[in-house]
Amino acid sequence: MTNPTITDNAPALLGAGQAAEEIRAGRLSSEELVRACLARIEQTEPIVQAWTFLDAELAVAQAKRADLLKMTGQPLGPLHGVPVGIKDVFDTMDMPTEDGTVLHRGRTPGQDATVVSRLRQAGAVIMGKTVTTELAVYAPGKTRNPHDPERTPGGSSSGSAAAVAAGMVPLAVGTQTNGSMIRPASFCGVYGYKPTYGLISRHRVLQQSRPLDQVGVFARSIEDVALIAEAIIGYDPLDPDTLLRARPHLRRLQAEAPPVTPKLALVKTPVWEQATETTREAFAELAAVLGEQAPEVALPLPFDQAHELHRRIMEADLARSFAKEYSRGKDQLSQVLVEMIERGRRVLATEYNDAVAAIPVLRQELERLFQWHDAIITPAAVGEAPLGLESTGSPVFCTIWTLCGLPAITVPLLQGDNGMPLGVQLVGPPGDDAALLRTARWLVQTITE
Amino acid sequence: MTNPTITDNAPALLGAGQAAEEIRAGRLSSEELVRACLARIEQTEPIVQAWTFLDAELAVAQAKRADLLKMTGQPLGPLHGVPVGIKDVFDTMDMPTEDGTVLHRGRTPGQDATVVSRLRQAGAVIMGKTVTTELAVYAPGKTRNPHDPERTPGGSSSGSAAAVAAGMVPLAVGTQTNGSMIRPASFCGVYGYKPTYGLISRHRVLQQSRPLDQVGVFARSIEDVALIAEAIIGYDPLDPDTLLRARPHLRRLQAEAPPVTPKLALVKTPVWEQATETTREAFAELAAVLGEQAPEVALPLPFDQAHELHRRIMEADLARSFAKEYSRGKDQLSQVLVEMIERGRRVLATEYNDAVAAIPVLRQELERLFQWHDAIITPAAVGEAPLGLESTGSPVFCTIWTLCGLPAITVPLLQGDNGMPLGVQLVGPPGDDAALLRTARWLVQTITE
Repeated sequence: MTNPTITDNAPALLGAGQAAEEIRAGRLSSEELVRACLARIEQTEPIVQAWTFLDAELAVAQAKRADLLKMTGQPLGPLHGVPVGIKDVFDTMDMPTEDGTVLHRGRTPGQDATVVSRLRQAGAVIMGKTVTTELAVYAPGKTRNPHDPERTPGGSSSGSAAAVAAGMVPLAVGTQTNGSMIRPASFCGVYGYKPTYGLISRHRVLQQSRPLDQVGVFARSIEDVALIAEAIIGYDPLDPDTLLRARPHLRRLQAEAPPVTPKLALVKTPVWEQATETTREAFAELAAVLGEQAPEVALPLPFDQAHELHRRIMEADLARSFAKEYSRGKDQLSQVLVEMIERGRRVLATEYNDAVAAIPVLRQELERLFQWHDAIITPAAVGEAPLGLESTGSPVFCTIWTLCGLPAITVPLLQGDNGMPLGVQLVGPPGDDAALLRTARWLVQTITE
Repeated sequence: MTNPTITDNAPALLGAGQAAEEIRAGRLSSEELVRACLARIEQTEPIVQAWTFLDAELAVAQAKRADLLKMTGQPLGPLHGVPVGIKDVFDTMDMPTEDGTVLHRGRTPGQDATVVSRLRQAGAVIMGKTVTTELAVYAPGKTRNPHDPERTPGGSSSGSAAAVAAGMVPLAVGTQTNGSMIRPASFCGVYGYKPTYGLISRHRVLQQSRPLDQVGVFARSIEDVALIAEAIIGYDPLDPDTLLRARPHLRRLQAEAPPVTPKLALVKTPVWEQATETTREAFAELAAVLGEQAPEVALPLPFDQAHELHRRIMEADLARSFAKEYSRGKDQLSQVLVEMIERGRRVLATEYNDAVAAIPVLRQELERLFQWHDAIITPAAVGEAPLGLESTGSPVFCTIWTLCGLPAITVPLLQGDNGMPLGVQLVGPPGDDAALLRTARWLVQTITE
């Protein structure tokens, strides 16, 4: 190592952007970085349990290849040599993908999801597969919260959030069909960002629900969130719902100061009474600090139905997506999933299509709100990570934004009663992802200054 | 009139392309053309009953405006001054749109469907609204077959097909969710063309079923079919299912000779036994004439399910699209529609989504067929227009192609036992519409030479 300030497994705690810069400058090798992360994993994994597949040799081999490539003087991708954790619902050509269920044990698809292949193209080292809940729904995997092993890390992207929080990898990817990115990011105290529906391909990602499934990213800073998201956003003919439009300039814009002071809309949502007292108090304080910058805005009446619409779509789609698992291995599925599937099997086509058709109507309702406000500010979860590992907590504060496919980011700004992290969620208008990250960065600076 | 070959209401029998050319050259005025068509309508409408709304003054006023515009020397659209019939399911800003049901009587939307507005931009005179079956499903309107008023014109685009066949207008537009374009075109002995799903906008067109509804055109030649289709094909952000791609060069390509002799696939489909003996014999003769150019090809096994998949999607969507009509005016709906709606209300979301998900699978199956064959050749209907006006005949020979969203054209090449027309349907690979029209033209020339 040429840079004397970096020693031992300290590189594991570098931000992804910093690490990539060090590697590009020749002050750090990808192998050193990956070995530092592996050391960190060796140290923390016995408690955190973030990984369902990790082959240290395979990771180091990728890092060595990255270092060799750099020596040839070829142009390097933005994530060159940087390790990334992959939620175990993304297919990987060189690792198993088991989707958090014994029913898929030993599944080795032999092909990369588009997201994984884009990460490789950007130079990333695919570190390993992180723990997901059962089929990315509710039943927890083995992962524990790095801040308190007695508490859930949240789900379904449990391992990805925990691995980034524990300093095992600077970056990870996950998915969200309800609250599976924003909730674990909030519980684990990291940044979680789920772009606008249609920006990231879901080709070769475990499908739960076509109108709801969305891919997101975890990192320890907004810069890093932008760095990895920009590498994986893009049209993919293999996911017919990806949008054919220019990629947002996330990295550039998030670094800029907003042209005028952002105006936020503090939205309590129809599930506000489910928020813990601490969450409500924290948001009252936040509102006091922001003052005129964040007036409280009520969602219009149709949003009272949003959770029910989401439930109907998701359960009907679970019933379809996991029909094979249900019919062949129902007894190996969790009770909670079996019940969702059984409710989903009874949803009528007219009810389902009414719910899907309501999505653009709800989005349009929000357009008026976004004419006057840059972003919505709302809790990322009902409260800090609850005690116990038998549940991954409630996604209700994410449901509306996932249903509407809006970009959402959680920033670890608050603390609960037990000193556990508590995220502030910002939600922006569809397609305006770069401005949302810029607003989020402004908020962090405003609050922490 | 400067051209001595054109007299009285003879212009009504000109092709649309010819008429537009005469108008452009100053040898015919739009007013003369429209008045000729009105004279023709006056003469034949008492028997044919193709129109549900026709205001001669409004049509003539549009024609006069077209003639004035021409005098200013401004560039003229490809349909300048040419009258077009509009199926009464397309909204029109200046005429009522009643969808073939008493429940919508007096409905005056005050806005144009995208198709209508594109026709106006191309210079067309919107002649009037043509008869549709009840809500574009099965229950017949008042229209009779111009070749024999005791027989159905087919449906649901009954009036559009009959108006073009009777020489009332050279062009008309319709819609097809099952067999509503190809079947009436076949029964009335005109050309009917339904482009690839997603090429023509359905904004402000009566919605039956989002995955199935498609817009098409009627004319008395392939050139004219290409002329009007090219004017209305195009991406429309207001129909999220329209494709963002370059418009096919229908007019140019249909006029060209195929680079090599086309290879057709004679496809009998799983409903072959429903074809009349005459149809079967006619196709046997056709096969004999074409020989090696049209080998019989069997559809792969999954197509045995296609009609059932189509039924499931269509009925579930009818139940949703016409929920208001059903709940408020069930007794004013036909028994056949009420039964479809009631079956549709019982379709489960999983069944519906399984069926929708099967569409791309079926399309892919056909891709292999289209690697070896330029087009499928198959009957347009089970036989000639049946006697009686209480039914519009069977759509079964159109169902598969509508479900798969493939481009289809029917050419009036054959005759039934009673001298009624019998169409030959050609079906091409998705997106390859221009080549399909070229192949159709080649077939017509080959057979009629």
